[in-house]
Amino acid sequence: MNLADIAKKLEAELLGDGDVEVSGVSSIETAGPGDLVRVDSPRYLPAAERTPAAAFLVGREVASCSRPAVRVPNARLAFAKALALFTPPETKQSGVHPTAIVGKDARIGRDVTIGAYAVIEDGASVGDRVTIHPHVFVGWGSRIGDDSAIFPNVVIYPRTRIGRRVRIHGGTVIGSDGFAYEWDGTKHAKIPSNGWVEIMDDVEIMANCGVHRSTTGATIVGPGTKIDNLVHVAHNCRLGAHCLLLGASGIAGSTTLGNGVILMGGAGVSHHVSIGDRARVGVMSCVWKDVPAGADVSGNPARPHRENLAALATLRRLPETLKKHGPE
Amino acid sequence: MNLADIAKKLEAELLGDGDVEVSGVSSIETAGPGDLVRVDSPRYLPAAERTPAAAFLVGREVASCSRPAVRVPNARLAFAKALALFTPPETKQSGVHPTAIVGKDARIGRDVTIGAYAVIEDGASVGDRVTIHPHVFVGWGSRIGDDSAIFPNVVIYPRTRIGRRVRIHGGTVIGSDGFAYEWDGTKHAKIPSNGWVEIMDDVEIMANCGVHRSTTGATIVGPGTKIDNLVHVAHNCRLGAHCLLLGASGIAGSTTLGNGVILMGGAGVSHHVSIGDRARVGVMSCVWKDVPAGADVSGNPARPHRENLAALATLRRLPETLKKHGPE
Amino acid sequence: MNLADIAKKLEAELLGDGDVEVSGVSSIETAGPGDLVRVDSPRYLPAAERTPAAAFLVGREVASCSRPAVRVPNARLAFAKALALFTPPETKQSGVHPTAIVGKDARIGRDVTIGAYAVIEDGASVGDRVTIHPHVFVGWGSRIGDDSAIFPNVVIYPRTRIGRRVRIHGGTVIGSDGFAYEWDGTKHAKIPSNGWVEIMDDVEIMANCGVHRSTTGATIVGPGTKIDNLVHVAHNCRLGAHCLLLGASGIAGSTTLGNGVILMGGAGVSHHVSIGDRARVGVMSCVWKDVPAGADVSGNPARPHRENLAALATLRRLPETLKKHGPE
Repeated sequence: MNLADIAKKLEAELLGDGDVEVSGVSSIETAGPGDLVRVDSPRYLPAAERTPAAAFLVGREVASCSRPAVRVPNARLAFAKALALFTPPETKQSGVHPTAIVGKDARIGRDVTIGAYAVIEDGASVGDRVTIHPHVFVGWGSRIGDDSAIFPNVVIYPRTRIGRRVRIHGGTVIGSDGFAYEWDGTKHAKIPSNGWVEIMDDVEIMANCGVHRSTTGATIVGPGTKIDNLVHVAHNCRLGAHCLLLGASGIAGSTTLGNGVILMGGAGVSHHVSIGDRARVGVMSCVWKDVPAGADVSGNPARPHRENLAALATLRRLPETLKKHGPE
Repeated sequence: MNLADIAKKLEAELLGDGDVEVSGVSSIETAGPGDLVRVDSPRYLPAAERTPAAAFLVGREVASCSRPAVRVPNARLAFAKALALFTPPETKQSGVHPTAIVGKDARIGRDVTIGAYAVIEDGASVGDRVTIHPHVFVGWGSRIGDDSAIFPNVVIYPRTRIGRRVRIHGGTVIGSDGFAYEWDGTKHAKIPSNGWVEIMDDVEIMANCGVHRSTTGATIVGPGTKIDNLVHVAHNCRLGAHCLLLGASGIAGSTTLGNGVILMGGAGVSHHVSIGDRARVGVMSCVWKDVPAGADVSGNPARPHRENLAALATLRRLPETLKKHGPE
Repeated sequence: MNLADIAKKLEAELLGDGDVEVSGVSSIETAGPGDLVRVDSPRYLPAAERTPAAAFLVGREVASCSRPAVRVPNARLAFAKALALFTPPETKQSGVHPTAIVGKDARIGRDVTIGAYAVIEDGASVGDRVTIHPHVFVGWGSRIGDDSAIFPNVVIYPRTRIGRRVRIHGGTVIGSDGFAYEWDGTKHAKIPSNGWVEIMDDVEIMANCGVHRSTTGATIVGPGTKIDNLVHVAHNCRLGAHCLLLGASGIAGSTTLGNGVILMGGAGVSHHVSIGDRARVGVMSCVWKDVPAGADVSGNPARPHRENLAALATLRRLPETLKKHGPE
C-alpha cells in the first residue's frame, strides 16, 4: 500500500512523496524498513529520523519532517486505524470445521466460522459472521450475536446471552456458578445460580477471566465495556457502558458499576457496593463502600485519591517529624 | 409446581392460597410474574408487593402479607432450597459421547456422563454418576469420586485424587507443577513435583483457578472447602475443612489453613505460614506470619483487624492532627 | 535403585550401607518406608529418625547419622536432582495422536508427541522432541523450539515464538490481544495488536497465566525466567533473564524488567516503568515508578522496603504515641 492510499484511508494530509511503499506500521522503538512510524510530537522527530522507517504518521504539531508523512489531528487514533490496515488475520480457517459438533437444534447464522473440536450444544444460537475458534464450548440455550469472535478454549456456560461485535479471548469462562453458600449448621449449603450472564454489544473480554452467572436474573456487562486479563466478575453484578477493568481487577457479588468506570490494575470492589459514573479506582486499591460519580479513589479501604496520597506522604515523613518535634 | 407443593418440600408453613402456580424463584430485584419471591424481613414487604410475583417466601418475622406465602425459620436457607427446585439442568447430554477418549485401563463407573472430546487417560478412575463435561482432560492415574462434576476445559494433571460430590468449574487446572526452583549458580534449577493434589469430598472450585501438586506427598484441599474464581493454591499447602477462599485470593507454598478459615477477596498468605481454625483474613490483605485460631486480621502485613482500622483512622486524621497540635 | 547408585548420580559421599533399596524421595513430613529423606541440618536429625525412611540425604554439616546416607555440599540442589530420579512420567503417550489436527504446511520435528484433539494450524513449526498435550491450540505461524512441553488446554495465538526447553502449563494463554484502546469521543476504539510474543529458552510458565502480544514488535519473556500461576503480563513488556514472577503478580503495559528481578506473590508493576536488575518487589506491593537495580521495595506505592517497614511500625505505634505525647 502506498502512502497516498494510506492518507486517503486515514483522511489525513499527505506531506511529501505519496508513492512511498508502506509495508507495516510501528512505534519508534520497533520501527523497521517499510514501516509507517507514529510521531506524536516534534520532540520525537530526532529519534524517528534515526530509524529506517519509510514514512511518518505525525500529529498536527509537526509542521514538517524529513521523510514522507501523513498528518492527522489525533495521532493516537490515526495510529489505531493505520495498524488495522496491516493487522494479520486472526484465523485462516473459514466455514464450519468437520470436527465441530453442532447440536441439532442449534441455530447457526450466515458466513459463520466454527473451528476444530468446538462444541455448540442444542438450542444455542450463533449469529451471522461469528467466528468460534477451536475447542470453544457453547452451552445449551446460549446466544451469540452477529460479528462476535470467541477465541480458543473459551467456555460459555448454558443460557448465556452475548451481544454483537463481542470479543472473548482464550480461556475465559462466562456463566459459571456464583460463589454463594449459606451455612446450615454443618456445611456451606449451596445457593444455586438459576440466573445467567448477559454480555452486551461491543464488549471485549481478555484471557482467562471469569464472569459468574446470577442467582436470579442476570449478571450484566454493559455495552462497550472492556475487561483485561484475569479479571473476576462475581454473580449479580451489573456493569455499565464503556467501563475499563484493568488486569487482575475484581468485583465481588451484587455490586453495580455506572458508565465509564475505570478499575486500575489489581483493584477490587467489595460486594453490594455501587460505583458512580466515571469514577476511578486506583491500582491495587479496594473499595468497601459506595463511590460517588466522578470520584478518584485509592487505598484499602479506598478514599479520595488526594487524601490517600496526602496521608501516605505524611506517613512517609512521620518518623522524621516525630524525631524533630515530638516531646521527649 | 403449586405453592402447597413447595411448602411441603421446604417444610414450610403455608399462608394463604396453596393452589397458586409458581414457575420460578427470585429476589425482589428480578421478580417476574409466577415467581416465588424471598422477603427476609417485614421492611422489604412494600418493595415485594410492588412486584408482579405470584407468592412470597417469608422469614419468621413476617406475620402476614397480602400475597400467598410460605413461612420458614431461615429464609436464606429456604431460598437456596427453593432455587434448587427450579434450577435448569447443567447439561442435557447423558452417557459417554462417541468422541470422548477413554484410556484402555481407565475404570468408568455407572451412570457416568462424559462429554464430547473429553480425554480420560490410561489408569484413571471415574466414579458413579460423575459428569465430565466437554474438553476436560483427566491425566493418567487420577481418580474422581462418585457424584462429582468436572466442567468444560478443566485440566486434571496425572495422579490427582478427587473425592465425592466435588465440583470443579471451567478452565481450572489441578495438579500442575509447583513453582519451586533452586539457584544453581547459573540458572533456576527446577525442583520436580513428585507429589500430587488431593481434593476431598464436597469441595467446590470455581473457574480458572490453579492448585499446584506437591513436591512430595499431597497438596490437600479439605472436605467442604469452597474456592472462588481465579484463586491460586501453591504446592505443599494443606487446607482444612469448610474453608472459604474468595475471588482472586492466593496461598503461597507449604502453608496450612485450619478448618473454617475465610480468605476474603484478593487476600494473600505467605509461604510456610499456619492459619488457625475460623480465622479470617480481610480483603486484599496479606498474611506474613502465623495467625491464631479465631483471629480477624487485615492489612499488609496483616495484623488484628481492629488495630489495623484504628491505625488507618489515626493516619486519616494525621495531617489535621499535626497541623493543629504540632510545634512550629 | 540402591543408595550406592544414587550416591554416584548425585556425586555424593556415601555414608553406611550402599545396598539399601530406595523407592522414592521425600521431605521429613511425608516420609514413608523406602524413601530417601532430605535432612538439611543436624537439628532435623531427631525428626528424620522418627520416620520409617530408608536413607537420608544430608548436608555437609551432618557428620554422621543412624541411617545409611548420602552427603552433599548443597542439600537443596541435591534434593532436586534426587527427586528427578523418581519423577513419574508427565505423559504415557508418544507419537502423534490420530485425532490431532496438524495444518498442511506445519513443520513437525522428530520424536514429537502430540496429544488427542490438539490443533496445530497451518504454517506453525514444532521442534524436535516437543510434547504438545491434549486440547492445545497452536495458531498459524507460531514456532515452538526443541524439547519444549505445552500442557493441556494451553492456547498459543498465531505468530507466537517459543524457544527451546520451554514449559507452558495448563490453561495458559500466550499472545492474545493487548488491552489497548483510545477513546474516540463515543467509544473505546481498539488499538490492534500487530505484534507478537517471544518466549525465550528455558522459560517455565505455570497454569492459567496470560501474556499479551505487542502492538508492534514483540512482548518478550527473557531466557530462564519463571512465571507462577495466574500471572498477567501485558502488551509491549520486556522481561529480562532469570526473573521470578510469583503467583498472581502482574505487569502493566510497556514495562521493562531487568535480569533476575523478583516479583513476590500478588505484586504489581504499573505501565511504562523500568525495574533494574535483581530488584525485588514485596508481596502485594505495587510499583508506580522506576526501581533501581538491586533495590528491595514494598508498599503501594512501593518504596524502599526498610523505609516501608519503618513507616508501618511508626503507624502501628501512632495511636499510643499521640495519646502519650500529644498536646491536649
